Formats: sequence, structure tokens, C-alpha cells
Amino acid sequence: MQTIIFTNEVREAVINLIDSLKPASVHIITDTNVNREVIPSLGLDYPTIIVDAGDENKNIESLSSIWSRLIEQGATRKSLVINIGGGVVTDMGGFAAATFKRGLRFINVPTTLLSAVDAAVGGKTGINFNGLKNEIGAFAKADAVLISTILFSTLPPEEILSGYAEMLKHGLLSSESDYRELLGYDILNANLESLLSLLEKSVKVKERIVTEDPFEKGIRRALNLGHTAGHAFESLAMRKKRPIPHGYAVAFGILLEMIISHSLEGFPSEEIYGYAEYLKNNGYGSPEIGCKDYDDIIELMRHDKKNDTPGAINFTLLSAPGTPLIDRTAPETEILTALDIFRDIMD
Amino acid sequence: MQTIIFTNEVREAVINLIDSLKPASVHIITDTNVNREVIPSLGLDYPTIIVDAGDENKNIESLSSIWSRLIEQGATRKSLVINIGGGVVTDMGGFAAATFKRGLRFINVPTTLLSAVDAAVGGKTGINFNGLKNEIGAFAKADAVLISTILFSTLPPEEILSGYAEMLKHGLLSSESDYRELLGYDILNANLESLLSLLEKSVKVKERIVTEDPFEKGIRRALNLGHTAGHAFESLAMRKKRPIPHGYAVAFGILLEMIISHSLEGFPSEEIYGYAEYLKNNGYGSPEIGCKDYDDIIELMRHDKKNDTPGAINFTLLSAPGTPLIDRTAPETEILTALDIFRDIMD
Repeated sequence: MQTIIFTNEVREAVINLIDSLKPASVHIITDTNVNREVIPSLGLDYPTIIVDAGDENKNIESLSSIWSRLIEQGATRKSLVINIGGGVVTDMGGFAAATFKRGLRFINVPTTLLSAVDAAVGGKTGINFNGLKNEIGAFAKADAVLISTILFSTLPPEEILSGYAEMLKHGLLSSESDYRELLGYDILNANLESLLSLLEKSVKVKERIVTEDPFEKGIRRALNLGHTAGHAFESLAMRKKRPIPHGYAVAFGILLEMIISHSLEGFPSEEIYGYAEYLKNNGYGSPEIGCKDYDDIIELMRHDKKNDTPGAINFTLLSAPGTPLIDRTAPETEILTALDIFRDIMD
Repeated sequence: MQTIIFTNEVREAVINLIDSLKPASVHIITDTNVNREVIPSLGLDYPTIIVDAGDENKNIESLSSIWSRLIEQGATRKSLVINIGGGVVTDMGGFAAATFKRGLRFINVPTTLLSAVDAAVGGKTGINFNGLKNEIGAFAKADAVLISTILFSTLPPEEILSGYAEMLKHGLLSSESDYRELLGYDILNANLESLLSLLEKSVKVKERIVTEDPFEKGIRRALNLGHTAGHAFESLAMRKKRPIPHGYAVAFGILLEMIISHSLEGFPSEEIYGYAEYLKNNGYGSPEIGCKDYDDIIELMRHDKKNDTPGAINFTLLSAPGTPLIDRTAPETEILTALDIFRDIMD
């Protein structure tokens, strides 16, 4: 089990972790944005490696530069890496640490809600390669993850909404009551403390699933809820040069998969409308798809990385909030019908 | 425990392994030499990725090209990589497999005695980086290792001697009788079958140690016998532009560490002479060091990667054949005296 610490006393928690891990040296990995917005407030004085912000920099060149800097800074096998940033930093910094001298210890300090609830926990590290997301990487657990909502205070609302979509997903996987609590929460006017306790509950859902199935052979695939459709929406938006945040794509993906779940698994229709209402009321907007996009969406779903059965399109579906069903497939006609209903609801 | 198969029916063994692992696809990784000398005789018909032979090509560029070829060849998470080659191929191919989509299964088929007895077994994978050997890598076990002496039949004698040094090391770590058997073996006139059974015994010594301590926290360091001094001899020879095979450097390193073991741990002097005799009789030659090299040798030992205690020089020593002592340090004066004795014996 990974140590996950929920606190808003960030500096003290980092120093306590360093004291307990007794590393030969400490190396902070962060990006240009976080280095400007967050790092100064932490008052940590360690050699720092700064990568360019943005998913387009989560690549082999940035990874090589992290390795080179670790060498220059004299990192040994007994050193500790602290990744402070969003998913790009925790994924790439974790992979750099996991492969430097065949593995240094590392700590993740996520600075976005999305990375706190998703990338920072669960041992997936990696980089993009040849235009493919997370194509190269390793399963490597952080020695500790330190989650603090105070680090999110400078984030724009769309970053909060993006992370909250993954929290809604965890609620749907966990239980009806967890899910209802999230639907009743006013995320746009969140206070740091209530969000921290809600986040703790959400992260523990992921932790429980990952502990049960660390290498994604079975139940961990439930975490893919919303992502088969979500990745397709995300890639389509990218192709149209109007990118949407990852969490928005997941939020829309969940809705489409709820609709498919309704016709294939009896997921209640009133839940579909209640969920769509939450998205509308909180300003998620719409993915703006038209029927001329359907072929592209189907093709993108078919080539999703998690889709390891050639021909079929794989989904995590739901028979009710709290009851996921993994490794389900849907025929193309079902998906096309669901896209029609989706557009009716969202437009 | 890793599956290790000792056989000279290579093709049948590979096909049986593929049948039992049921991969979605099979991808062979090899180098230019092995592709010319060995691959045709195996009659295996799978997509093949060929890297340039030589340790200087065990780098990030070759690694990236392997990843790109795996993508082009359509490898999925359920594919299987078969590394057929020496240490460069098994180290780099293993690392490529371990990090492609966060980990494919892989099999090692070593084609040199050195890689059979050392690199192919034990889960260390990696590449050189910024001039540092194996600086980047991961612990990742092959799903199976297939060891066949028939693959060594085209190797020049120095390749056989190089590998045999690691076998002598395993004998010294294992027991007096194992060690005596190796000293009595005529390696330069070896036949395939007797070498295969001796190799099986040797590989099992390593396997036993690695199983006990996979991440090199304790007893696995015993495998470093001969390597603190050996790496220094190897690097020195490289600096002088007269490189020596890795196994020769280890053979000389073992001798120097026996001499240090004699003065610090009572290792019997007759064993030192018996060992030196074997090296001389089998044509290992000498590392040709003079007293003007002493400073360089000490400095190289001090910066050895395994040396994670700043200041000290760490060795695996022996109190007798079969009785290793890990995490020992020797003062500089002892090492200098040992170098004098070493030159007396070898010159």
C-alpha cells in the first residue's frame, strides 16, 4: 500500500517525509508554471529540475534532460526525488526516478485536482512517444503521495472541473451514497477543507481498486469508466484544433457510457438526466459533436489503447451508481444511437 | 523464480515457450552480428528488430528505435519480445520490453557465454547514458531464459574466456568443490554438453542469490566479487585505448580482491597462486598496469556505481573459496600494496 498523506501543512509534511526516508540527497522535479506559482510558497531548498510545462513536453527529450540533471546533481541510488506538479510532472518525474540507476525512491506532490485524484496515485508512470499517449512507462509506486488542496488555490475553474470529473467517476464506481454526496457538492465554491475530505474519500476509492489489481488485469479496468468515449472526444477535439481539458472529455464520456449502460445494462434513465444536469449547472459546456463526427468517434474508440481485443469496442459500464461492470462490449449501432441521445441531452 | 531452460534444442524450446505463453504477437530483438551468425540457423519466422552490435550502441537512440519498431510491428500489451544476443541485446531489449506500454513479456536467449552466465538472468535491464554504464534501467525479469551452448559455437576463444571468469566467480561464491571443479575444467577445449551442465550449475548460483535478494539490498552484492577492481581495470584499459573484454577485467579484479582478502580476511595465499595459474595457463594475459596507474585505479574504484558510501571503497571479499563477505571496505594503503603484489604475480 502506498503512503498517502492528506494535509494542508505541505512544508512540514514534506520535511517529515524526508526525515523518515533519510535520503542521501533530495531532488525536486517540477515544471515552469508550478515553479513560478507554487514552489516559492513551499520554502523548500533543494536542487530543482524544471521541465517545460505542457503535455507536449512529456517526451523523451524532457526525460533525458531530467536524467542528465540528476547525474549533474550527484543523485545516487539512495537519493529521493520529489515530483511537484500536475500529471505531466508526476508521470514523467516518476518514470525518470523509476529508471535512474534502476530506481530511486520518489514522492508525488500533485498541484492540480486532476493529478491528485488520478495520476499521482496508483503507480503508473510514463511519457508520450511517437504521438502516442503514455506509450512508454513503468509501473512504479511513489514512496508517498502528499495531497493538499491548498496547492490548488491558484488554479482556474476549468482545472477544478476537470479534476472533479474523475472524482464523480470514483463516486460512480464506489457507492450510491458517495456518488450522491458528490452530485450535491458545490465544486465551484469549494472550500479547501471540505474539498480535502471529499478528495480523501475519492482517492481511497482508487487506492482500494489499485491495491486489489496493481497491473490492470481485472477490476482496475473499472477505472476506465468514461474513458473509452472520453479519449475519443478528447482526440476529436484535438483534431479539430479546439482541445478540451481531459476531465471534461471524461465527464462527457461518462454521460455517453451511462446512455449505453441504460440500454445494455438497465442503468436508470433518471440517473442519466441527474448527471447531465450537474454538468450543465457547473459549466462543463458540451463537446460540440455533430453526426458527421460519428465515424471518427467510432474509429477512435476502436483504437483506444485499452482495447486489446481486435474488432470489439471495450467499455466499463454501470448497472447502477456504485455497480460497475468491466470488460463489456457494445455493438456499433448501440454507440451510434447513444451519440444521438447524448446530443439531444447536451445541446 | 525465473524459468531457466538449459537445452541445445533451441528452436523447439522457443516454439514450446511461445505455445505456452500464447502471445498476441512475437517480436525478435537482436543485433547485426547475431542476425548474421546465429538467427538463420534457428529458423524462426517472426518480425525482427536489428540493432547495431556493440556496447557503444546500447544507448537511448537504439532504445527509441526499438520502441518505434515495436509500434510499427503492432505490438500490444499481450505481445512477447524475444531477445536473442549478448548482454547488449538482453539488457536493452529487456528494458525496451519492460517499458513499452508499461511492460511486455520477454524471453532472453543469450548467444554469448558471458550473457548466459550473467546479463540474461536476474532481472537487470538497462542502457548506458551520458557515458555511464547501465545508468538508466529497470529491474524486470524475463518470463523465461533459454540457455544453449550450441549458440556459442562460432564465438572466438576470448569470448569464452570472458564468460568463464564470471563462472569462476560463481564458483568462488558457491562452494569450494564447485570452485575446484571449474579450476579443473579445460575451458578452451570445452565440449557443448559438459559446458552446458557446468553452466547450469553456475547460473543456478546466481539464481539462488538473486531470488534471495532481487533488489540488491544485501547478499546480491556478493555478485560484485571482482567487479570493484574489475571495473577500474576495464575503465583504465578503455582510457588507454586498449580495451579488454569485461570478463578479463573481472578475472583480474578477482585476483586483486583475493590479495586484499588475504591480508584483511585471511584468504589462503595458495588459493591466490592457484587462481593466477589458471589465468596464465588459459591465456587471459595481464592488464598491463604500472605504478603510474595506481592513482587512476584508486579514483576509478572510488567512483564505482556500487560504491554508495562516499569516501570509502567497497568490496566483496572472501575468507575462503565458497565464503564471501559483503560490504567490506579496504584502506587505500592496502589496495596499493595489493596492486604491487598483483603485478609481481602476473608479470
